[in-house]
Order: sequence, then C-alpha cells, then structure tokens
Amino acid sequence: MEASIVLSRIGLAGLAVMGQNLALNIAEKGFPISVYNRTASKVDETIHRAHNEGQFPLSGHYTPRDFVLSIQRPRSVIILVKAGAPVDQTIAALSEHMEAGDCIIDGGNEWYQNTERRIHEVNEKGILYLGMGVSGGEEGARHGPSLMPGGSFEAYNNIKDILQKVAAQVEDGPCVTYIGEGGSGNFVKMVHNGIEYGDMQLISEAYDVLKNVGGLSNAELAEIFTEWNKGELESFLIEITSDIFRVKDDHGEGELVDKILDKTGMKGTGKWTVQQAAELSVAAPTIAASLDCRYLSGLKEERESAAEVLKEAGLKEEVGSVKSGIDKKRLIDDVRQALIWKGGCIIRAVFLDRIKKAYQRNPNLASLVVDPEFAREMVQRQAAWRRVVGLAISAGISTPGMCASLAYFDTYRRARLPANLVQAQRDLFGTYL
Amino acid sequence: MEASIVLSRIGLAGLAVMGQNLALNIAEKGFPISVYNRTASKVDETIHRAHNEGQFPLSGHYTPRDFVLSIQRPRSVIILVKAGAPVDQTIAALSEHMEAGDCIIDGGNEWYQNTERRIHEVNEKGILYLGMGVSGGEEGARHGPSLMPGGSFEAYNNIKDILQKVAAQVEDGPCVTYIGEGGSGNFVKMVHNGIEYGDMQLISEAYDVLKNVGGLSNAELAEIFTEWNKGELESFLIEITSDIFRVKDDHGEGELVDKILDKTGMKGTGKWTVQQAAELSVAAPTIAASLDCRYLSGLKEERESAAEVLKEAGLKEEVGSVKSGIDKKRLIDDVRQALIWKGGCIIRAVFLDRIKKAYQRNPNLASLVVDPEFAREMVQRQAAWRRVVGLAISAGISTPGMCASLAYFDTYRRARLPANLVQAQRDLFGTYL
Repeated sequence: MEASIVLSRIGLAGLAVMGQNLALNIAEKGFPISVYNRTASKVDETIHRAHNEGQFPLSGHYTPRDFVLSIQRPRSVIILVKAGAPVDQTIAALSEHMEAGDCIIDGGNEWYQNTERRIHEVNEKGILYLGMGVSGGEEGARHGPSLMPGGSFEAYNNIKDILQKVAAQVEDGPCVTYIGEGGSGNFVKMVHNGIEYGDMQLISEAYDVLKNVGGLSNAELAEIFTEWNKGELESFLIEITSDIFRVKDDHGEGELVDKILDKTGMKGTGKWTVQQAAELSVAAPTIAASLDCRYLSGLKEERESAAEVLKEAGLKEEVGSVKSGIDKKRLIDDVRQALIWKGGCIIRAVFLDRIKKAYQRNPNLASLVVDPEFAREMVQRQAAWRRVVGLAISAGISTPGMCASLAYFDTYRRARLPANLVQAQRDLFGTYL
Repeated sequence: MEASIVLSRIGLAGLAVMGQNLALNIAEKGFPISVYNRTASKVDETIHRAHNEGQFPLSGHYTPRDFVLSIQRPRSVIILVKAGAPVDQTIAALSEHMEAGDCIIDGGNEWYQNTERRIHEVNEKGILYLGMGVSGGEEGARHGPSLMPGGSFEAYNNIKDILQKVAAQVEDGPCVTYIGEGGSGNFVKMVHNGIEYGDMQLISEAYDVLKNVGGLSNAELAEIFTEWNKGELESFLIEITSDIFRVKDDHGEGELVDKILDKTGMKGTGKWTVQQAAELSVAAPTIAASLDCRYLSGLKEERESAAEVLKEAGLKEEVGSVKSGIDKKRLIDDVRQALIWKGGCIIRAVFLDRIKKAYQRNPNLASLVVDPEFAREMVQRQAAWRRVVGLAISAGISTPGMCASLAYFDTYRRARLPANLVQAQRDLFGTYL
C-alpha cells in the first residue's frame, strides 16, 4: 500500500475554468488529484491556484501517460473538455494508457447518445464509463455542484465517497445520486438545462413587463427582485437577477444591464431538450419558446429593420396608452404571482422540496398540475397570470414563455379540446398529416 | 422502337389508396403504366379501377421481376410505401432487376436524410434516385397533386413530361418543379406538411373561440366558413372545414363533428419540421404549438382527470362571464381577421400568389413581415388579433397557435428585447446555458 501514498486518488483532464474549479474542489475536500491539460500553461495555472487557495493535494502532469500513471488503480479520470470531437480525442489519448477496470467520467454537457456510443467503445478494452452532468456553473464547480452521474454503477461506487463530499450539501444530503445506466446522467442534465432556459426566459419577460409596461427603473427592479428572493421565489437565478440591476456601467451613466446587447447566445442543451421532447411526444412549450426567443434575439438587425418597416406601415405602439392606466403596485404583485410557480423554481430549494413532497404523496402523479396542493395554488394565481399576459398582449409585449405556459395549462386541464376538428380534417384530407 | 409499344412508360409499386390513385392519374393522362404490389389483390383492385374509371393504359404485375421488365428503359419506378424500412425493402426487391440509368422515385413522406443515404446506396449500381413529395392527399393524387421532386436532375428530366401532365394545373402552369439535389424534395414537403399542421391548428382555434366564447352552432359555423371561403381565406382547408360542420351523425341527433373524439393522430412530418427548425436556429412557434396540441390531445384521460382536480381545487370557468359580454358579430369579424393571414394560407392560391409577388418585389426579403404590403395588412389586422387572443385567455381558452404567432410577431418586430437580461444571467451564471 506504500505506492498509493504517492499516487493520486483521482485525475482530471481539461483545465478550463470549470475543470480547474472542480479539481480544486476535489483537492480541497482532501482527495489527492492529478490534473492534465494539453496546453501546459493551464496545468501551471491550476498548480498555482491549488497552492494559493490552500495548499491542496494536487499534482500537475504534462503528458497523458504521466498523468494516467500518477493515479491509483482502478483509475478514475474526469474529463472536462468541449462536447463532441474533443471528448473523443481526449478519450483516445488517455485510454491508451488505461487498463481494464479503470473509468473515464465525462463531466461536460454531452449529447446522451454520444455517451452511449462511447460506453460501448471503451468497454471493448474493459474500461468503464460515466457521463456526469455537472450543474451550478463555475462557482458551483468550485464550492459545491449538483452532480448527475450515469453509466457504470461499479465506476460510480469507486468514486461515490469523492462525489458525495464534493457536491453541494443541502439539508437532506449531498446533491448527487446515481441516475441510471447509459447516457441517463447526460439526459437528466440536458432536461435540467432546458428548464433553466425556460426559467431565464420567464424572468426576462417579468423584467420586460415591469420595465416597459410598469415603467420601473433599474433601482426599483433591483429592490423588487431582492424582495421576491426573500419569499417563495427564493432562488439563485432571482438572486443574481437582483444583483444584475445594481451593476453600474463603468464607462458612463446608469446601469450595465441597459448597455448589454439584447442578443442571447447558447450551447446545445436547450435545443436538444426541445428536439427530444418532440421525439418523445412531450409538449414542452415554455422551453421551446425560450429557445425561439434566443434565436430571434440573434436577428438583431432584422428586428431593427422590421421595427422600422412596421412603423412606416402605420403601427402605433400601444404600450403608452396601456401604461397610463396601470396600477403599478397591482402589476408588480400580478407579475410575482405569474412568475412564482413557473419561473425561479427548480433551482429553488423550497420549490424543489414541494415537488418532491407531491411525488411522495402520489408516485404516479401524471403532472404537478393535478397534485391537490399545486392545483389549489394554481387556481389562486391563474387570474393574475391571465391579467399579466393579457396586458402584455394589448401592450404589444407578448411574453412568449408566459403565453406558452398558460396555453399549456389551459390545454392540459380541458376535458374537451377542438382536436376533433383537426381529426375530421385529417379524415377528409389525408391522414398522412 | 416496336418494343416500346408493349412496354410501359413508367412503373408504380405500392398500391394503397395513394399509390392506386397516382397510378390511375398517370394512366388517365395517356402514359402506359405498370403497377405492382406485394399483395396480389391490390394489383387486381387497381386493374379493375383502371378498367372501370376509363379503360386507362395500365398493366398489373405480380412479381418484382415481371414488373421491372415491363417498363421501357431507362426505367422510372415510383414507389409509394410506408416511410422507413418498407422503402428499403422495396428498393432492394426492385433494384435487383434494374440497370444503370434506371431511376427509383420515392413518393412517400420520407425523412430527407434517408433519401440522401439511399441516393448513395443505389448510385453504386448506377441507379438514379428521386425523393418526391406528393401533396394533396388521396384526391390530389387521383386528379392533380402538387409534386416536389428532388435528387437526380437527369432522372427528373426523364419523367418531366409525365409529372407536368399529372400535377395539378393552375393559372401559371403545372404544380411541379425540380426542387434541387439530395433530399431537398422531401425536405420541402416536410416543411409544407409542418405549415399545414399550423393551419389546421389555427382553424381549430378559430372554431374553439367561435363555438365556446361566441356560442355559435354548427349551422352558424358552417355558414361562416362557407362565407370566408368566398373571400380572402379561400382555401381547400377552409372549404372542407365548412363541409365538416354540415355532416349529420348517422346514429343520432346533431352533427358528426361533435361525436368525433378530440384526439388527433399524426405521422412524422410535423415533428420533423419542429426538430429541424430547432436544428437550423429557426423559430417556428406556430408549428411547434400545433404539434404540442396534438400530443396533449392524445392525453384524453389525463385531461379529463385534470379538469376534475382543478374543479375540486376551486377553478371557476370564466367562459360564461366572458360570453355574456360578447358582441357576436364583432367577434366573428375579429376571428376572421386573426385567422386570415395566418391560417388558411399556403394552400390558398390567392395568398400564395401574394407571397410570390412579395419575393418578386424583393428576392432578399428577410421575412414576409417586412414586405410593405404584408406589413400594412398586419398593422390593420393586429388589433383584432390581439382582441381575440386576449379574450380567449380571459375565457380560459388560450388559443396556443394564435398566441405563439402573435408572440413571434411581437418579438420579431421589436428592435430591443429583454434578451440583455438573459445574456447578463449567462455571463454571471455560466455561458454553458
């Protein structure tokens, strides 16, 4: 057992910020870790940080071979590189030096079918594989992420103690559990990201209505989001949103939020969620609306030109006349109610706990909508929700995510839909549609 | 050239109703055709129909070999079987007897990537390939479909004369053109079907609002749709919709439409359109909403149970109070305006012609929304559109497709969106989202 004293307990390859932070988190929890990156300067940077942030047990390596051989067997190697081809390249470089029983853990936002392909590929050499969703961003990686490992249960058990220490700690334990076989860890992370897309969209719509219909200033918005974060809406996203409204612009008057370009980038997980929902016959309209808004946000020049053309065609902005009749306090409260059980959630411990309880009451619950407690709450809040959406539509703001959520609610809860007409059209016209 | 007198000009394999009708259409236009089906009775049925419907030049064959050898070279064989594996099986059975320069034309609703794979597969034997969308349903196939052939241009030219005679004839010529290489014919047909999904959804929402908010009877609905079909909304879908409201129930009182189950089936093209739109960064919210409504319509039992649970939780139907304040004539006109330039279109010659003109005015038009003529019309009609959607939301009807279209319009036409907040959240939280 002497050898194990000098060998690391685990390895991590791919030292962008997420990788560095997760490695430091693992080392800080007392697990000696080897790190590796193709660009040597990243290795030096990580060694430097491990030293500075607390003399953590971390060793840097500059070749795949040195890196792999510095880890005790069965070896567990986390990789945090870009999804797609870089993952395949990293697996090829590392697995050359790995042995049967060792395990590769992909911590990136990977398409679950790629993980399933890789499971089979490395299994031919007896190497185990985990696809592990890592949630919480850079801060989470450093101080406590939510981890969603899926794939080899044996490989999971090899590092269970590490994952449980490294993960975020909440009242009912560490934020990690074995998700299941194959690419299930990536799949769950993908859906989780999709839900965050929806949350972010709904918050931005609340902002849009409060600012453009309610006429609220950034200072007022900051105050309101801070207030909401104390109540039922308490969540990381609401918290950072309130912070955002307070950041001053370094180069001029006012707040930074107004200087940020209204174009939202994206990676693949939101798109995948929408495509998979369609594949599985699941309606996910709020996530789809958030994805569409990102796409449309990207067409900045087209939007500017459309605004011009429609103005020339005689379009009058209705927001002014709607605004003049507004009861600001009532609007703020309506928006809070409209947002409360749709946005902000999921990442919110209070809300997650209520979801958990609903499924404990009835493990076969078809939808949260039909849990008696959620149903009562929705009945109470739906009038405010309708008012906000209706107001936005008449003001020309048209909150796409809130509209889509409401349409979903009103469709799901109706015993009789007009789908009979569509079916009649299909019968007459051609059932290929 | 004597041999060509006894040989057929073209062949068609797969004699379900679509295949039979297209074969009879081709034969009726004077092109001798060979037909084949794995089940012999379908061949007999088709021969019988060819005889009865007008002594058309059609010959039936009972083996792939006899069938293929009965066609003059270079042979063109249309196949109309179920998308997926049956297409591969049919290709395998027929291509065995085909020669270099012959062509297979898949007339089904096939996933365009399958067509591209098959193009490469049959090309190894020198066989050409077309993926040809066929629109217009069973009636269209018999009397004049819209045809969207894509793939080998040489193969298209071999049968151009046939396609131009067989296709629907409109003022500016036959409804067929060479779409492009690869699977482009299937791709265009897929998008076309997706648009029909949207049209059918919007018409069903107009029906829903008129019936449940306006309180219109089937007789009134039939009258209104007939009226609309005479004006700008003139289209096949509006026409059959007016017919639907008139069909009496054979087994009881009232009209059949009320007895049809509100569950809408589907084939793959709507789903593919939504998935491809996401893949290509295109917002297609109306089609996505129509797909979601089909999925939700399928959950009939869940919806019935949700209606119960929410009633118990205290949900009051608002439709009664909204209804009592309705100006019926105004509502009908608002719904017409809301529907007019969104639903019914595409399949409507008048509207298609206007779209064509808009792109003739400006071939680089970014969107119809910014064509000056369409822009003016939208400006005129948007108030009615907002009233219908707002009314529906307050009545708990929540027209998902109309909402989604309006949200798209209001997003596309805004120079400044709240996407800056989402971008700020991403910057703070993690750009992996």
